[in-house]
Amino acid sequence: MIPDFSEVYKKLTESDKDNSPLPPSRKEIISIIKEIQHLMFPEYFSSASGHSGIGAINELYLRIKHQIEAAFRFSSSEAGECEKMTAQIIESLPTIKEKLNKDIIALYEGDPAAKCPEEVILSYPGFYAISIYRIAHEFYTRKIPLLARLMTEYAHEKTGIDIHAGASIGEYFFIDHGTGIVIGETTTIGNRVKIYQGVTLGAKSFDLDAEGNPIKGVKRHPDIGNNVIIYANATILGGDTKIGDGAIIGANVWLTSSVPAGSTVYYNRK
Amino acid sequence: MIPDFSEVYKKLTESDKDNSPLPPSRKEIISIIKEIQHLMFPEYFSSASGHSGIGAINELYLRIKHQIEAAFRFSSSEAGECEKMTAQIIESLPTIKEKLNKDIIALYEGDPAAKCPEEVILSYPGFYAISIYRIAHEFYTRKIPLLARLMTEYAHEKTGIDIHAGASIGEYFFIDHGTGIVIGETTTIGNRVKIYQGVTLGAKSFDLDAEGNPIKGVKRHPDIGNNVIIYANATILGGDTKIGDGAIIGANVWLTSSVPAGSTVYYNRK
Amino acid sequence: MIPDFSEVYKKLTESDKDNSPLPPSRKEIISIIKEIQHLMFPEYFSSASGHSGIGAINELYLRIKHQIEAAFRFSSSEAGECEKMTAQIIESLPTIKEKLNKDIIALYEGDPAAKCPEEVILSYPGFYAISIYRIAHEFYTRKIPLLARLMTEYAHEKTGIDIHAGASIGEYFFIDHGTGIVIGETTTIGNRVKIYQGVTLGAKSFDLDAEGNPIKGVKRHPDIGNNVIIYANATILGGDTKIGDGAIIGANVWLTSSVPAGSTVYYNRK
Amino acid sequence: MIPDFSEVYKKLTESDKDNSPLPPSRKEIISIIKEIQHLMFPEYFSSASGHSGIGAINELYLRIKHQIEAAFRFSSSEAGECEKMTAQIIESLPTIKEKLNKDIIALYEGDPAAKCPEEVILSYPGFYAISIYRIAHEFYTRKIPLLARLMTEYAHEKTGIDIHAGASIGEYFFIDHGTGIVIGETTTIGNRVKIYQGVTLGAKSFDLDAEGNPIKGVKRHPDIGNNVIIYANATILGGDTKIGDGAIIGANVWLTSSVPAGSTVYYNRK
Amino acid sequence: MIPDFSEVYKKLTESDKDNSPLPPSRKEIISIIKEIQHLMFPEYFSSASGHSGIGAINELYLRIKHQIEAAFRFSSSEAGECEKMTAQIIESLPTIKEKLNKDIIALYEGDPAAKCPEEVILSYPGFYAISIYRIAHEFYTRKIPLLARLMTEYAHEKTGIDIHAGASIGEYFFIDHGTGIVIGETTTIGNRVKIYQGVTLGAKSFDLDAEGNPIKGVKRHPDIGNNVIIYANATILGGDTKIGDGAIIGANVWLTSSVPAGSTVYYNRK
Amino acid sequence: MIPDFSEVYKKLTESDKDNSPLPPSRKEIISIIKEIQHLMFPEYFSSASGHSGIGAINELYLRIKHQIEAAFRFSSSEAGECEKMTAQIIESLPTIKEKLNKDIIALYEGDPAAKCPEEVILSYPGFYAISIYRIAHEFYTRKIPLLARLMTEYAHEKTGIDIHAGASIGEYFFIDHGTGIVIGETTTIGNRVKIYQGVTLGAKSFDLDAEGNPIKGVKRHPDIGNNVIIYANATILGGDTKIGDGAIIGANVWLTSSVPAGSTVYYNRK
Repeated sequence: MIPDFSEVYKKLTESDKDNSPLPPSRKEIISIIKEIQHLMFPEYFSSASGHSGIGAINELYLRIKHQIEAAFRFSSSEAGECEKMTAQIIESLPTIKEKLNKDIIALYEGDPAAKCPEEVILSYPGFYAISIYRIAHEFYTRKIPLLARLMTEYAHEKTGIDIHAGASIGEYFFIDHGTGIVIGETTTIGNRVKIYQGVTLGAKSFDLDAEGNPIKGVKRHPDIGNNVIIYANATILGGDTKIGDGAIIGANVWLTSSVPAGSTVYYNRK
Repeated sequence: MIPDFSEVYKKLTESDKDNSPLPPSRKEIISIIKEIQHLMFPEYFSSASGHSGIGAINELYLRIKHQIEAAFRFSSSEAGECEKMTAQIIESLPTIKEKLNKDIIALYEGDPAAKCPEEVILSYPGFYAISIYRIAHEFYTRKIPLLARLMTEYAHEKTGIDIHAGASIGEYFFIDHGTGIVIGETTTIGNRVKIYQGVTLGAKSFDLDAEGNPIKGVKRHPDIGNNVIIYANATILGGDTKIGDGAIIGANVWLTSSVPAGSTVYYNRK
Repeated sequence: MIPDFSEVYKKLTESDKDNSPLPPSRKEIISIIKEIQHLMFPEYFSSASGHSGIGAINELYLRIKHQIEAAFRFSSSEAGECEKMTAQIIESLPTIKEKLNKDIIALYEGDPAAKCPEEVILSYPGFYAISIYRIAHEFYTRKIPLLARLMTEYAHEKTGIDIHAGASIGEYFFIDHGTGIVIGETTTIGNRVKIYQGVTLGAKSFDLDAEGNPIKGVKRHPDIGNNVIIYANATILGGDTKIGDGAIIGANVWLTSSVPAGSTVYYNRK
Repeated sequence: MIPDFSEVYKKLTESDKDNSPLPPSRKEIISIIKEIQHLMFPEYFSSASGHSGIGAINELYLRIKHQIEAAFRFSSSEAGECEKMTAQIIESLPTIKEKLNKDIIALYEGDPAAKCPEEVILSYPGFYAISIYRIAHEFYTRKIPLLARLMTEYAHEKTGIDIHAGASIGEYFFIDHGTGIVIGETTTIGNRVKIYQGVTLGAKSFDLDAEGNPIKGVKRHPDIGNNVIIYANATILGGDTKIGDGAIIGANVWLTSSVPAGSTVYYNRK
Repeated sequence: MIPDFSEVYKKLTESDKDNSPLPPSRKEIISIIKEIQHLMFPEYFSSASGHSGIGAINELYLRIKHQIEAAFRFSSSEAGECEKMTAQIIESLPTIKEKLNKDIIALYEGDPAAKCPEEVILSYPGFYAISIYRIAHEFYTRKIPLLARLMTEYAHEKTGIDIHAGASIGEYFFIDHGTGIVIGETTTIGNRVKIYQGVTLGAKSFDLDAEGNPIKGVKRHPDIGNNVIIYANATILGGDTKIGDGAIIGANVWLTSSVPAGSTVYYNRK
Repeated sequence: MIPDFSEVYKKLTESDKDNSPLPPSRKEIISIIKEIQHLMFPEYFSSASGHSGIGAINELYLRIKHQIEAAFRFSSSEAGECEKMTAQIIESLPTIKEKLNKDIIALYEGDPAAKCPEEVILSYPGFYAISIYRIAHEFYTRKIPLLARLMTEYAHEKTGIDIHAGASIGEYFFIDHGTGIVIGETTTIGNRVKIYQGVTLGAKSFDLDAEGNPIKGVKRHPDIGNNVIIYANATILGGDTKIGDGAIIGANVWLTSSVPAGSTVYYNRK
């Protein structure tokens, strides 16, 4: 009644690297993210593990360490002292929480539709994406890019906001709506910057190696100063492009060169 | 073996508002949305609670009431007669279902790729977002914006379509693809309007208060007439901007002023 | 204490088509997708069913067959030999896996931020969307468009990438970031093509029938040659539009007519 | 870091019957049981599938049919017309519901601790076990003993009450506490019988075949008349043992021979 | 293909009391039990809700209140001040925790196989059953017997130990193995009592009312003094039966009359 | 509206050992058990992790190691080389599988109600309990009694069969029905032994220490020879009690002294 699928099975499994350990687990990384969100904002994010107290932090330590160990089997990064790195990441949580509290203020004050700060924590995709970025950044700076990427891709999936964990972002960061935002790996962003949906902070073009593939590890994305506002769907490209403090970049603007502090760049259409 | 994290724990928990009740639950709001979808389209959306019959509606009543009570602790809205509001919302469900049946017709007839109306209910992100918007709007008009926002953000997350619950949208509404659509809080949209992916119905600029923050509660988004078509990635901004009946706005068009009925606005590129 | 909702219940249920069988299940289709991903990449995607060995394939066969039977009750397609179709789909899996292995190479080599091929499988939304598209395409070509659509909409929801299952896409396909990409039903794409976020391969306009609704089943979307690169937010429209081999289409470009092989099309702004 | 377990893997998998279809699924059988309980008592048992209306029954039909097909690959029973059997089982549900309503009356009236009939449905292990037995019996009588056994073992696990699906049990059946009750395959029980915890209705001894194994398919368990009461931990053994109508068997009594109608058998201790 | 089940559907649903609210939820009661276990022993029982802090207690308050309200629609008890009762139950939790800490000591010291007190909390069915009994007893004494019964039946299902919530049990209670233990509604048990598997503290016989049904609400079960030990499978019956302080009742003993303090009752067999 | 529970919270949490690591997780141990069952009988037990191949074994290794590390913080056993122990346990799995295959034969041949060997694996509580015992025994013999106990208590909960992991049990072990069986820590059982429901292999009495508590670590339970049959509810007690090869112990028999090989012990009642 059921056809014989032994050939299919054979073909599907013949190339499996049977003897290798499992890579980091996407599910587990997402679960770790949620646990950290709970530890930082217990009233707004519930815990999936259901642990509480210091025991919860201890358990989190072991889970992160396990994923770091798994990641080091796959990453080209120098394998390191996993225990030390994991402890450092745990110890960075209170500082991340402080930074996120500042982001909440920026989001609440910057959006006329926000009725109360609680609404920001509960429902703003911008906050969700920033909170995951700030956690992922701690992994990236410790040379665990695979885990960092898994984290920011989860944020990307949930919010449509694609912030590379390698980007460097200042305090009081504001994102509204957010869908379609792309912030590249080597971007730097100052304090009190506001970014709207569809903004790309990207690469102009890629230098290719001898085989025609892009060269990895080069500064490719722009630097954004303090107090800059970038309206919806603006595109700013290039590793040499610098947007000066206080500049305002209008919606749909296309920028591939630097702009001095205090500039206002609008694209005239209609 | 596990480092001592008591300092981390102390820092993370010291500012917790231990004595306050929990805010509305995002998980529960999503679950309520799904229950309503099941009640309206039982063949297409299964029930997570597994209840059926009038008991299911009674249970839904209690769950919504519980979330409204939780919301009133956080919202600046006048706390009200929760029971009455909840009953009104339940009683609005048959009307919402009627409206959604009209949206289904619009989506099926408007998309040449749709093979049957069932496909629309089962798989169209446009329908999914509209159905949640229509439910959320009932909460918004009863001054429960926090719950309304939680609902539309869930739709945003699932579909990339960001319709503010405060917007007013007519019958036979059509959205195709949808990713990146933003419809602001004070937008009004007539009947039989079609909108494609990436369209923004947004604010031109925000009036700032003395401290430099946007003033809340002002009309900031456009009015769209009946039978209007707005193609992909068009941007229409401003509280005074009115798009007349039957107008067609081309893809990528950028509009910050009104357009009379019957106009066709195309942006000439290449 | 609880109001009497018997009127609400009556209204909500009066139009239910009580006697009809259930349509295909969105949940089950998603679960089938995940099972196939597990069968093809067992180290990276875990199985929700927890089955293994040929028994897992047999079980998958029965589940797909069940959904195809359900779909044929709703699709306008000619009802067919479900068993045969299902077996063909199962037998296509090794070939799909081969194609996906080529896509992985394209994604790894094409993205300077990719640290290792494993990162692509684990975390790239482009890979996720392509892998679901390639599975869904097998259903589409066997005239089961409803299931195919459910699959690609799931990918759309997770990644913001909206590839219609009817599109025809060559080998070594590369998508970066991805949010907002739309690839229409009658698009054809050659080998080694690269596409960035926000690109639309869409329809120019729809021929309307006597009642003013779009005519279904017409060639409406462009043909893309081999080795083409299309940068972010470019829009290419029309069933007659052909992009020649090796062409490069710049970001934000708007194209509604054909372009010869080897062309470079940039849109000059600022 | 992780030892090489390839030998373990090889040994564990070498004998797997890779090519055979999966047996019936214990999880699925339990889920089917729960769906039937929901269909019969929707206010007390929620549905895991979340389906409602006739669609729910149709779906149940397909799920049961699938399990019956799976069972026939393993059972020594004559493979049969699965569709017909499944339909008969579905059609027996209203009758089972009627019988269970009588059992509820018996349980409520018979237990002085019962405060209301609803308590019986919600919380009595005796009712839970009987309701599953009555469903399983329909499978047993259609010669699908494997599924029947999976069902009654689930009841056994939840309640400690082990009723073989082959037993024949009359109306208004009463079980109190229940833990440890064993009712064998060839037992018959009349109407309005009451049984307390720890009662065994078992086999006296097994006739052995030439190889010293028990001969299967022989009448081995007692016949219990109408209106019989059997108190806690009584043991009644043997295929020839008949307990006459209205008999009362005291706690801890050990019986291997018949007892006439109206008898009272007490075991004198202390 | 699927038979027409409209008759089955009609029969199954015709008697449904469509207009009545749902009864208390078994699932929710079990979930409440687990939440309380987490609040009392956070290191050993994880939280399913994932809440923490006072917010978790507040949420628990609302969930219990909701179930009490549901229960009062079904119970013959006088409907009462639900809020007050719920608050009292919450306030009793620290006292229950203290009592359970004493039970843990009794279980650890009394079982030669126990290696550490933690083992008792994590794995002893006796502890599990006692902890649920002590919670359920708070509901019983406030005349919410339906919820109390749902709780103790859950313990019964998990452990095979059937303690009626109405029983009154002193401190330092010890249960070993436990399967098959039955402790009736009107039993009283002193301090430091030890009970082994299969022990029944039950009713001798039931006084019947005019219709032949047992009269409810009568003292039917024995009183057990302090420091009593009752070995496996002993049966003690009757509302007048009193076991004096320090008595030892041997395994399998059958007792229907009182025994003075300090007695040792063994049943001589073989 | 919600009472102030800050006092309750304070009391509940004041004694928490905030700084200690979490104990082994009951949930995780159960999940590990199920994973092992899947590895040994993949067609009958599905995997909750959804892993397959050697990666699944590697992952299992890490999970077991993590629990052993957690256990050593609580056990009085000498902390040991966790890695080595874990590897030994993994390596013992093929041998356990062989033993279980023999148990399956014993169960199928010994029960006249068994229709096929598959029924035994899928549905027999006796097999379920034995399979967990054989796994747990590997932990016990490596001096990890806490994990072993968590495993056998899970079997106890599911089946009502309470086999201490310390017991030593030969091949071709047969258990029927099973509810209420208790097999103590220092019991030894030979090959081809059959045991029915309610049988206790227990301790006669406990030697007490100076404080009146039982002395731990003493031989307290009987030795059962090869080919012994022990019928329902028989009780065999004492560390010196030896049941000789081939003996048959009748139902309800009470034994506290040794019995020579080949004996038949029946208890004469009625």
